[in-house]
Amino acid sequence: MSIPVIILVRPQLVENIGAAMRAMLNCKLTELRIADPRDAWPLASPHKERLEASAAGAAEVLEKTRVYPDVASAVADLNSVYATTARARDMVKEVLNPRAAIAEVKARIGANEKIGLMFGPERTGLSNEDVMFAERLIHIPANPEFSSFNLAQAVLVFAYEWLMANSAAPPSAIPQLKSRPATKEEFGFLFQHLEQQLEEGGFFTSPGMREAMTHNIRNALLRAELTEQEVRTWHGMIAAMTRKPLQR
Amino acid sequence: MSIPVIILVRPQLVENIGAAMRAMLNCKLTELRIADPRDAWPLASPHKERLEASAAGAAEVLEKTRVYPDVASAVADLNSVYATTARARDMVKEVLNPRAAIAEVKARIGANEKIGLMFGPERTGLSNEDVMFAERLIHIPANPEFSSFNLAQAVLVFAYEWLMANSAAPPSAIPQLKSRPATKEEFGFLFQHLEQQLEEGGFFTSPGMREAMTHNIRNALLRAELTEQEVRTWHGMIAAMTRKPLQR
Repeated sequence: MSIPVIILVRPQLVENIGAAMRAMLNCKLTELRIADPRDAWPLASPHKERLEASAAGAAEVLEKTRVYPDVASAVADLNSVYATTARARDMVKEVLNPRAAIAEVKARIGANEKIGLMFGPERTGLSNEDVMFAERLIHIPANPEFSSFNLAQAVLVFAYEWLMANSAAPPSAIPQLKSRPATKEEFGFLFQHLEQQLEEGGFFTSPGMREAMTHNIRNALLRAELTEQEVRTWHGMIAAMTRKPLQR
Repeated sequence: MSIPVIILVRPQLVENIGAAMRAMLNCKLTELRIADPRDAWPLASPHKERLEASAAGAAEVLEKTRVYPDVASAVADLNSVYATTARARDMVKEVLNPRAAIAEVKARIGANEKIGLMFGPERTGLSNEDVMFAERLIHIPANPEFSSFNLAQAVLVFAYEWLMANSAAPPSAIPQLKSRPATKEEFGFLFQHLEQQLEEGGFFTSPGMREAMTHNIRNALLRAELTEQEVRTWHGMIAAMTRKPLQR
């Protein structure tokens, strides 16, 4: 197992289970366990149809989901369990934020541990008895005046952190373009063309302001990081604007 | 304005708007704008009741939400707009992941810019015309085989990144306890007590294994990072287990 298991303990609403499945698959998590659900078997009719609708196509998660009679059996084969909690517990357990928790989870999975992330019921959260199965607590440092996350939203926070911790994509990128970025020489010819036409049009009213204005205009065009194709478009724009009106 | 504005463009489902409001307030975002909604005014009956139910008490966001006839008016007073997109656009715009985008948003807000994060309709996402109002694109590096996020889930990803970027809480902490962590001297007395009783009980079968076993046991107890109160409990446990049976 190279991914953490998500464990929903006594979830109340089938819609939240489905939304959690969708969020998980969005973020490449596919192992879901349901411990002691209110409805004996949310994967059977009449619940299954509503579950499928809210899972919105996350069939890979739905098919692999397993239901357990209690928390003990749901975590039996795991090496470490993290319990999500919105409130302080009077327990001597380390509390991690989601990012720190997922960094640890990733390291433990790298050392071949099987890891579970456990989420409590919608209204009450995990009981202290549930939390006793966990080594560590995880807490989202939410708005203290409105701290209760929807269950599927809480699952997404951890799934998203897992996604980001395993993403090889760079944080920012310019898409591969048909046209390459312009060279400094191409920019140089554009500046020359533009400034010559501005000079002829009387734009620079004094030699003193010429330098400052030229710098401002050049900096704005440099910030735009024009492509070679765009530089040619700008040459055409300057030519169009400085063209003599057609004789009638 | 010290927070970014969330802009939902032509949202289709009132439930998603409400869930987005809840996610926003969970993460201390309160400024929501709705551009060109399908239903002229999702904040009026009969939609408002369903909106309120799905907002789950996020009244602060609900009350401040404003509806605009089009994207142009929704972004008119903003300095920079980021457009979320699930698919590549044939445009020369930088694409950021949510974390990099929010880092930039935070820096720009620090420089007194007004910033908007724009989300498209559920099925289609933003149109190219919508995207033309944005300087930059944001892309969640999701599962390529299941990349479509629920609208409220997408809003949460950015709201959560905003929350984390502004959280002063440490990534991990041991809660303030009634009992302080044990000192090395207290651990020393515990090891002494335990090992003496193990010796008397014949646990160490050879002097050679005594050292290795002692190290293993001490390391396990050190990993547990016992409190002073817990060390006293362990002394009591050892005493109870080594007590002579009561005479009958």
